[in-house]
Order: sequence, then C-alpha cells, then structure tokens
Amino acid sequence: MEKDFLLVELFELYKGLLTEKQRETFSLHYLYDLSLAEIAEQDGTARQSVHTIIKQVKAKLIEFEDTLHLKERFDEINAISDEIENKGLSDRLKEIIGK
Amino acid sequence: MEKDFLLVELFELYKGLLTEKQRETFSLHYLYDLSLAEIAEQDGTARQSVHTIIKQVKAKLIEFEDTLHLKERFDEINAISDEIENKGLSDRLKEIIGK
Repeated sequence: MEKDFLLVELFELYKGLLTEKQRETFSLHYLYDLSLAEIAEQDGTARQSVHTIIKQVKAKLIEFEDTLHLKERFDEINAISDEIENKGLSDRLKEIIGK
Repeated sequence: MEKDFLLVELFELYKGLLTEKQRETFSLHYLYDLSLAEIAEQDGTARQSVHTIIKQVKAKLIEFEDTLHLKERFDEINAISDEIENKGLSDRLKEIIGK
C-alpha cells in the first residue's frame, strides 16, 4: 500500500515521459482500481499483457526517479518551503513543485 | 550561441535520460567543441550519422523540457531563493537545483 502510494507519486511526476498506452493502463489499475483482469477484458487483450505493461511502467518510474531524483528534490524543497517565513515565497515554491 | 547555451543547460538537466552514445556525441560537439567531421573521424563513421544523432538529441532535450519543465521550474526556484532572507535555506535550495 505504502509502495503503491510511492508509485502514484512517481507517476504524477513522470507520466509525461510514458506512452499513452502505459499512462492509460497504469491509471486504470492504480487510480481507478480496476484489476488486471478487468483492464484486459476492457482492452480485449490477455491479462498477462496488462501485467507486462504495469511491470514495465513500474520499472520506468523507478528508473526515472533514480536518474532525475524529482520526488527526492521536490520533497526537500517542500520541507524548505515550510521553513520559509515569507508566506508569499513559500507558496510560490509549493506551486512550482505541485504541492 | 544563445541557443547552444540553452541546449547545454538542458543537457545537464536531462542527460540521464539519453543513451551513452547520445551523451558522448553531444558532449564532444557542444562541450569539447569538436566539429561533426572530427567526431565522425574519431568514431570511424559518416559525418551524416553524427549529424543525425545531434539532431535527435536536440529534439529529445526540447521534448523533455516541454514535458517536465525542469529548466523553467529550477530558474523560478533560483529566483525565489535569491529573495529568501535566510541564507541557510536559500543555499540549500540552490544546492538541490544545482545552481
């Protein structure tokens, strides 16, 4: 559950780097809670194919984070923004990092 | 020249998303100032192949920025960090965005 939440966070950061098909499959499973079997039925494909796409997306999201460290950096920036006394600057920072 | 500087900035941000070959070719041309012909000679390949790789890398860097807006976001964060009175927080911000 903890891990799924991390994946959804990484998805929000990096979805623009995924293909349309990868984005759609990930969303249906992780954001709309459809099972792999339900997605397969809807797509007219095999459950195994859906499983493969989900596995690929997970690996890509983790690879993107290992490369660009956006979640790590944005979490740190968010913590810093909480320490900034000037509310205007703090809010602008949060907006840039989507918090 | 202005435009080359932008490409080098984008390269620093996104090089982790490129292949080893793309990184090497871009570096030789833009960071080490080798001509396409010189790179081609060094690689034992045609000038046209080097040109194609450079073109692909440029397109990818622009696509990454259009998708993730890291240069845009980090430039804004840098401007905000200049306005923060607490030097410790300002310096931490700059470190996170590599400025």
